[in-house]
Amino acid sequence: MRVLNDLYDYDGLKIYQYDDKFKFSLDSILLAEFVELKPNTRTIVDFCTGNAPVPLILSTKSEARIYGFELQKNIYNLAVMSVKENKLESRIKIINANLKDSLEYILPESVDAVTCNPPYFKYDKNKSLINEDREKAIARHEISMNLDDLITSAKYILKNKAPLYIVHRCDRLEEILDCLNKYNFKVKKLQFIYASYNKEAIMVLIKATKNGKVGSLKVMPPLDVLQHKSYKGIFD
Amino acid sequence: MRVLNDLYDYDGLKIYQYDDKFKFSLDSILLAEFVELKPNTRTIVDFCTGNAPVPLILSTKSEARIYGFELQKNIYNLAVMSVKENKLESRIKIINANLKDSLEYILPESVDAVTCNPPYFKYDKNKSLINEDREKAIARHEISMNLDDLITSAKYILKNKAPLYIVHRCDRLEEILDCLNKYNFKVKKLQFIYASYNKEAIMVLIKATKNGKVGSLKVMPPLDVLQHKSYKGIFD
Repeated sequence: MRVLNDLYDYDGLKIYQYDDKFKFSLDSILLAEFVELKPNTRTIVDFCTGNAPVPLILSTKSEARIYGFELQKNIYNLAVMSVKENKLESRIKIINANLKDSLEYILPESVDAVTCNPPYFKYDKNKSLINEDREKAIARHEISMNLDDLITSAKYILKNKAPLYIVHRCDRLEEILDCLNKYNFKVKKLQFIYASYNKEAIMVLIKATKNGKVGSLKVMPPLDVLQHKSYKGIFD
Repeated sequence: MRVLNDLYDYDGLKIYQYDDKFKFSLDSILLAEFVELKPNTRTIVDFCTGNAPVPLILSTKSEARIYGFELQKNIYNLAVMSVKENKLESRIKIINANLKDSLEYILPESVDAVTCNPPYFKYDKNKSLINEDREKAIARHEISMNLDDLITSAKYILKNKAPLYIVHRCDRLEEILDCLNKYNFKVKKLQFIYASYNKEAIMVLIKATKNGKVGSLKVMPPLDVLQHKSYKGIFD
């Protein structure tokens, strides 16, 4: 069922979701909060934008023009409605397309920052996804795009030295870093997300710059999601 | 001046150091504690062994035969004396050689685990190291070996699928991971070391296996050195 919710802790922001099948996650909030924007940031692109939590939050941090790509029509519709509800149509534009086709909409090397909360799981064609509907499966599994597509697409549209921000699962970190390296992105910041400081990290936030210099990586303070102001609202 | 100290919290273990110029660091203790040894571990090699804190601690965790490589004669002498002091000559052998020559002492593909707390800083031949004596400089800077030497040397002597453990500075993490990837080591575990959970990580512990499988990386709970049982003794 479609519902209109608050975007936690972001005063006044509202977001449309399907309460039974498509809701934004804390991961997207952490990603948006991790993003550092220079005052002269003009253009941001958010891939796999879902119902647009990242563009909505970034609109509170910057005056930039923000483009969100969402392939799935139903979810795209939620995003468009959310943007309209918040009267942000002049600043946020949602595009109903695969990130692989982003050059049809965005000029090459024109973007100041790219963000993405991508599908986390590899897609194994031999395993059926019988328990998941198609929409959920596309949001969770690399069916329509994979890491390589994400990183090359970001590379095409980003200005030289501009950052790509990704949130992902820790168990795929090595693969992500290899892929970033392959396309000459340099990792500038990592931040690990824990559900408890006694347990393994569950997620990682990554900032990498296109054609950046190696050797200045920072590993930020650990993040405990249970302490996050938005935690309660989302999982309760 | 040469002094005989306790190896903190490892009951009964003693270690020789120069109190004015060469002391083992907490990093070595954390590295030794990070190492996981299977019951059938027969042979361990510790590169850049210094005065042998890692072999000494590992001797409490395993019955394996442990070889420590130390290039610098004066520091090698400390290590030999420390091994003797602890009556561990039958289990720990210190070798006065560069890790690059390890195949002169160790059979190829014969080792169950390699550990290393290497020099942390790149060596810039154009910058003088006027404030450091030569001995300290070799322990801190990549003068006698570099990351590539470490990882290839480990690869030669490790059994297939066997682990390499490294402690290093976070700002070189990307470079280390690229180098491990280049020689087909797969990263299995990372653990970040913080001096406070409000600040950036200072060090990282890495476990990577020779010819391992990709995709099972774990990021262990964050480590706060100020909480470590050995912290006080070392820095006070």
